Amino acid sequence: MNARSDTLVLPAPLPLDGGGELARVEVAYETYGDLAGDGSNAILLCHALTGDQYVASPHPITGKPGWWERMVGPGKPIDTDRFHVICANVIGSCMGSSGPASLAEDGQPYAMRFPVITIRDMVRAHVGLLDALGIERLHAVVGGSMGGMQALSLAANWPERAERVLVIASTSRHSAQNIAFHELGRQAVMADPRWQDGNYYGGDAPDSGLAVARMAAHITYLSEEALTEKFGRNLQDREAKSFGFDADFQVESYLRYQGSGFTQRFDANSYLYITRAMDYFDLAEEHGGKLADAFAGTSARFCLVSFDSDWLYPTPESRHVVHALNAAGAAVSFVELSAPHGHDSFLLDVPALDRVIGGFLG
Amino acid sequence: MNARSDTLVLPAPLPLDGGGELARVEVAYETYGDLAGDGSNAILLCHALTGDQYVASPHPITGKPGWWERMVGPGKPIDTDRFHVICANVIGSCMGSSGPASLAEDGQPYAMRFPVITIRDMVRAHVGLLDALGIERLHAVVGGSMGGMQALSLAANWPERAERVLVIASTSRHSAQNIAFHELGRQAVMADPRWQDGNYYGGDAPDSGLAVARMAAHITYLSEEALTEKFGRNLQDREAKSFGFDADFQVESYLRYQGSGFTQRFDANSYLYITRAMDYFDLAEEHGGKLADAFAGTSARFCLVSFDSDWLYPTPESRHVVHALNAAGAAVSFVELSAPHGHDSFLLDVPALDRVIGGFLG
Repeated sequence: MNARSDTLVLPAPLPLDGGGELARVEVAYETYGDLAGDGSNAILLCHALTGDQYVASPHPITGKPGWWERMVGPGKPIDTDRFHVICANVIGSCMGSSGPASLAEDGQPYAMRFPVITIRDMVRAHVGLLDALGIERLHAVVGGSMGGMQALSLAANWPERAERVLVIASTSRHSAQNIAFHELGRQAVMADPRWQDGNYYGGDAPDSGLAVARMAAHITYLSEEALTEKFGRNLQDREAKSFGFDADFQVESYLRYQGSGFTQRFDANSYLYITRAMDYFDLAEEHGGKLADAFAGTSARFCLVSFDSDWLYPTPESRHVVHALNAAGAAVSFVELSAPHGHDSFLLDVPALDRVIGGFLG
Repeated sequence: MNARSDTLVLPAPLPLDGGGELARVEVAYETYGDLAGDGSNAILLCHALTGDQYVASPHPITGKPGWWERMVGPGKPIDTDRFHVICANVIGSCMGSSGPASLAEDGQPYAMRFPVITIRDMVRAHVGLLDALGIERLHAVVGGSMGGMQALSLAANWPERAERVLVIASTSRHSAQNIAFHELGRQAVMADPRWQDGNYYGGDAPDSGLAVARMAAHITYLSEEALTEKFGRNLQDREAKSFGFDADFQVESYLRYQGSGFTQRFDANSYLYITRAMDYFDLAEEHGGKLADAFAGTSARFCLVSFDSDWLYPTPESRHVVHALNAAGAAVSFVELSAPHGHDSFLLDVPALDRVIGGFLG
């Protein structure tokens, strides 16, 4: 389906919400499908916290299929025979875009010298990419979870850049519980002595702490029902409890696997920076405290999707955004889908989501 | 109110569910109020995971008030003018009863040589204490959270020992999600290099890992609503975000405080052993797979209490026990109380709980 990988160096330093600017910003991205001559068929896909630009291409480290292959491709709901799909690694991450593991001007990794960034800073880099690609107006911006935050941020801050805004399993602000889980993960990373204030590049990375952080996050991605249905109290490869501290239960084995697998493909400092950006996200606060004001004068069409089993960004979070869009007079549709998988539903087999996405993109 | 501290050495080795037995078991306990001449007014209070015997006495390490002072005392719902209240530190813990920090026969701490124990093993030690105190039949056994598991275990395995069984915010088995959170905590402890396979006594304890474990647990003790109401997105002692990794948000500061404070009073290995005992708890499994069979022939009166905001042991867990008790023909009352604090409601100011407890104890 004509997949291409590339990396752009932004032509100018990137101004940052925290003040100052970031020099020589690299944005690594993938595209799928061809751009129409009039540039009207581009879709920007925004990835989640630990996602990346490999939407429908094998992951270069793990070799696993792209994270949304079920949704993106020829004849699929995001149809690459019709649309030119762009997905860029967010800044702060570790798959080619500038982040804490990148080299600073002194030739050493930034590590914790990398500036604390925001969701809007990530989107500002995306807009820089669209400028470089000559794409003035997107057919749509689409994202789930943190990707949905980016879609909302683009709609609020660059309202002329997207005709359609599709926000899945997301929120306009991080709740106290969301912040609490992220802080837990950051403390797990920072408690690992190999973290060394972030200066571990070239040595042993804080994999133990990062694995614990990932385990905590994974619990929030699945619903209680999904965990019960998938694992219950089933034992792992044994007939009886061991009366020891091995992974007796399948759910223990699953979490350990998720934790250790993650450390092979993700940088611990990136985890700190991206969770921080998410915790800082509060779209209303950015716009004078009133969420409707964030969308004043928008001409885009919006679609919000939530899942009934998602307890990370539950349906009221989406409804809150919908109310603000209504107050702003925007065109918005909203659906809560029933799916058993919790927050992860947006990545999994939920045929109703395929229909919603296909229909909204037109 | 006539509080006494004491430690009993059980007269015989304690048989364990995992096989074998534990020699020279110490049980540290507190009592409040006087035992009636006929021994009929004794109440066994069972503490939670990180609780201890200091129900209504200042904690010897932290100096803080006892954990249930609002409930236990003269004229209080558990009235020490009328009842003789006993609370023993569970085995596996670290406040005087035998646990991994205790010395084994070779004069060295058990550390991970301490046997993996179960909730029933804890209760077996309690029963040994009751035997030594000459208390044949309790007026009531009472417990919240893990304390409720002990109350259920006593009712099921020593049905003649209690007239009344009061189980608050508890469950008859740990769910996959419960196990997942505990495994996360254990992995955080074990990931701390100072854990050293448990052999840290006399040196630096794995406080960083234990603090992370405690942070994770604390998130599960509060409801999402309670976190929002208590902290929301409020900043801690500052006017604006720092664009750094300090505890900008109050909820971050709260979690760090809870984590670090906990390590002063609790042993990391005890945390491993007690969480393991809770994860292993499945009262139906112990009794042939049918929960009603656990209560066959009981003559005790039961009362179960759940809280509508408790997502750690939500109401359906209590209802499941009530159905089994109904099937066993037991006398049981059940109430779901409305309280905003989540699982921690059983420790906090919920006047309706006071009335339920006072009424049930008669």
